[in-house]
Amino acid sequence: MKNKNIVPKESNFSAWYSSIINEAKLALYTSVKGSIIFLPNAWLIWQLIKKKIDDEFKKIGVKNVQLPTFINANDFMKEVKHIGGFAPETFTVSTCLPNPSKLLSNNDSQITSEFIASKQNTSFHDSIIIRPTSEVIFCDCFKKILNSYNDLPILYNQWCNVFRNEKNTRPFLRTNEFYWQELHTIHQTEQEAITQAIKTIKIYKKILKNELCMPFIYGEKTINERFAGAIKTFTLESLMPDGQALQCCTSHYLGQNFAKAYDIKYQNQNNQFDYVYQTSAGLSTRIIGGLIMTHSDNNGLVLPLNLAPIQIAIIPLEKNNLQINNCVKNILKSIKNKYRVEIDDSDKGLGYKINNYQVQGTVFIILIGKNEIQKNVLTIIQRNQHEKIEINPNNLKHFLKENGKNYQKQLYEKAKCFFESSIVKVNNFDEFKQAINQHKFVEAKFKQSTKNEEEIKKLTGATARCIKHKAKKNDKCFFSNEQATDIVYFARSY
Amino acid sequence: MKNKNIVPKESNFSAWYSSIINEAKLALYTSVKGSIIFLPNAWLIWQLIKKKIDDEFKKIGVKNVQLPTFINANDFMKEVKHIGGFAPETFTVSTCLPNPSKLLSNNDSQITSEFIASKQNTSFHDSIIIRPTSEVIFCDCFKKILNSYNDLPILYNQWCNVFRNEKNTRPFLRTNEFYWQELHTIHQTEQEAITQAIKTIKIYKKILKNELCMPFIYGEKTINERFAGAIKTFTLESLMPDGQALQCCTSHYLGQNFAKAYDIKYQNQNNQFDYVYQTSAGLSTRIIGGLIMTHSDNNGLVLPLNLAPIQIAIIPLEKNNLQINNCVKNILKSIKNKYRVEIDDSDKGLGYKINNYQVQGTVFIILIGKNEIQKNVLTIIQRNQHEKIEINPNNLKHFLKENGKNYQKQLYEKAKCFFESSIVKVNNFDEFKQAINQHKFVEAKFKQSTKNEEEIKKLTGATARCIKHKAKKNDKCFFSNEQATDIVYFARSY
Repeated sequence: MKNKNIVPKESNFSAWYSSIINEAKLALYTSVKGSIIFLPNAWLIWQLIKKKIDDEFKKIGVKNVQLPTFINANDFMKEVKHIGGFAPETFTVSTCLPNPSKLLSNNDSQITSEFIASKQNTSFHDSIIIRPTSEVIFCDCFKKILNSYNDLPILYNQWCNVFRNEKNTRPFLRTNEFYWQELHTIHQTEQEAITQAIKTIKIYKKILKNELCMPFIYGEKTINERFAGAIKTFTLESLMPDGQALQCCTSHYLGQNFAKAYDIKYQNQNNQFDYVYQTSAGLSTRIIGGLIMTHSDNNGLVLPLNLAPIQIAIIPLEKNNLQINNCVKNILKSIKNKYRVEIDDSDKGLGYKINNYQVQGTVFIILIGKNEIQKNVLTIIQRNQHEKIEINPNNLKHFLKENGKNYQKQLYEKAKCFFESSIVKVNNFDEFKQAINQHKFVEAKFKQSTKNEEEIKKLTGATARCIKHKAKKNDKCFFSNEQATDIVYFARSY
Repeated sequence: MKNKNIVPKESNFSAWYSSIINEAKLALYTSVKGSIIFLPNAWLIWQLIKKKIDDEFKKIGVKNVQLPTFINANDFMKEVKHIGGFAPETFTVSTCLPNPSKLLSNNDSQITSEFIASKQNTSFHDSIIIRPTSEVIFCDCFKKILNSYNDLPILYNQWCNVFRNEKNTRPFLRTNEFYWQELHTIHQTEQEAITQAIKTIKIYKKILKNELCMPFIYGEKTINERFAGAIKTFTLESLMPDGQALQCCTSHYLGQNFAKAYDIKYQNQNNQFDYVYQTSAGLSTRIIGGLIMTHSDNNGLVLPLNLAPIQIAIIPLEKNNLQINNCVKNILKSIKNKYRVEIDDSDKGLGYKINNYQVQGTVFIILIGKNEIQKNVLTIIQRNQHEKIEINPNNLKHFLKENGKNYQKQLYEKAKCFFESSIVKVNNFDEFKQAINQHKFVEAKFKQSTKNEEEIKKLTGATARCIKHKAKKNDKCFFSNEQATDIVYFARSY
């Protein structure tokens, strides 16, 4: 029962990824380059991930807000590193459409000249930025609502769309518009803010492992790879089956950089004014890309049970059979409150139906025919197993619970096994190049240097993914041969 | 216990509205004109409304999708009435920021000249529209996924932000960016599509009455007031305490207008190609403005229990009293799974605390002091009542359930009473003018005429809100004195 519309993973990984997205009805392109439509399956996966993160955030007192998409260009200019980091990929808004009467005249050259004329009147400093991230508006918000130390800490989060003008786009992984949560917090002390940044990354760790079943390496970014404006950036890095790393999420300690640029002050216990210490953190819809690549196979999507849009499908093997219909009804009734279940009693062939559910990542397909009724069993096809299983209908709930748990574990263990087998330690640049060309996740002693990181990227395509820990005294940098500062992971990345 | 920061409703309605938004911590302005920050209270209200609508939509088989914000200008041009209706208030995206090295030079004139130069290269037809509504992309999506009649109907909804360049903005009621759901459906027949448009408005009716406790009048829009590109627009119109109508939501039957412009065809039962019949419908965050105005008073927000961010507050009247603390703990434990509850045991004064909760629309404030412990009672202040009530702690759950239900009813009845008393029937233009000047919701026999509607608006500021029903044979138009076509409601509006 091979799915012929899916390009084999082994023959062309990138074409495999695209065919999964098509066949599993996840996304469509539009005529704006780099924009995608999230079809119901993909949007539901995101909503399910969102709910898990939101629940964890609520437990630590985070409140959701919603900030405007448009940012004043003058405001955006205040934190120099921040604007420097984002300027090349930021969209601006300038003007309304030409006069509608002109538009309706359908005279193209007239419309265009009116359009250009309307744009010439805007200077950059009167202009509006479309948010690539929302630090600037959160700062404005904090400045306005913060009075005294009694108000601190403030933990605000928003779920929103952000916009970046990307040259090379791929559905979920890199698009002009994507969805994320951005958590922004302000605190009285440096220590409290750093603690929050780490607490946030711990929440991401829990979600990634337990819900997405994705293994990862946790570490701090090198100076060169830090978020624009941050003092520390913590990251979770995963590895895709093609040997490219994926940055899953990041949590930043911003220090007082933004607080000073945007004047976020409060009255402390001694009636003096202090600047706050700040953090921000985000996880985006690019994780859907990671989720697809980590688990899926040549029959389509493989998803953790928690995140499968249709968790269970029921297929009656015959039409107009009262006993079969009653059995289907009873099964549906007993599980529909706990699982997302769909019945397919259409005229399509059984092979088509099974393929159709497997490609969408459905974990359990329950077959009910004459034979099943006679033997008082249900035939079950589990997404990651070749053999069909027969179970007693009375055991169904227990079966789903236990096998569901195991299924999640199996997914995680399989991915973890691959990740661990891909980590290679190297001692010099020759070994490094060889390992990178073999699509490995490379561990190396390194002396942090922006210049050398850029040189390494130019020569091999690999970037520093994160720092494992500090180097020992006699560790030599694999690249410069100088005293190493850190043990760093390198890989090519999405 | 009057709240001095709230401008009295009677003295200046508009200033009252603004002061409620400030004091109840609902929204902040930013430096981009017409943009607002939704603070946690306002965003939670929207999330609660969203959940109710989403649950109803799910029951009828609606699936959520997410479409891009950017629309290709060429695509936008295809439905002539649609573009004509939206062009004046649509933003466009043109270009990235100037080169970051120039930005960092901080040389303003250089930045500005580079910025203008980069804009001159874009012609309108290469340009990108920021969605004012998403018909165009939904059409693109439907065209791509629709094959045969087996696929129909398709009911897709999205929760998103949309953008319109408004001259006069007010928080929630009219902003450059707002949030809404937009439901888009396609069908095989005209009848099925019209039925869907009416089914959608029925869901809105249920939510408005039961959840928002807002009374409304249901009707169809006049030709002049229809959605750009629609054949029929159904609307729910409410009336604010200042006598201005508020369009709460709309549901449109679009016929085949968009299907033909965007080529949305399917293979029918006879293997021939047919265009679909389409609907769209939306309810936006402007309803939060309506909710605030409908119920609130000079002490702040009044909200239906279902939608209050903090439904119940518990205030211990003494600190470090073991009996009081235990009682507070037990009460919290017994109700926190069912209600959003907050405890205020800070050092602030009792008056301040009560004001603070009342201004945020908290429905029940529970006071627990020595006196309460001694008498084994709880003192309760209900948001819409002057007298405090004493109840037995064992009756609390029952009390909250019953009084909660009644509270919702009281809010609805009070608002309905006002609305009904504001409806005035008129027979001629003099009566019409007088009624409009008295801020009434005016019912009049009218002969539909775009020219006359525009004339009436110019002379009185009033617009046709909706059609009540068809006119009788001898009914004369109050304005033109010709044979009337319809009985129409008029009012000034938000």
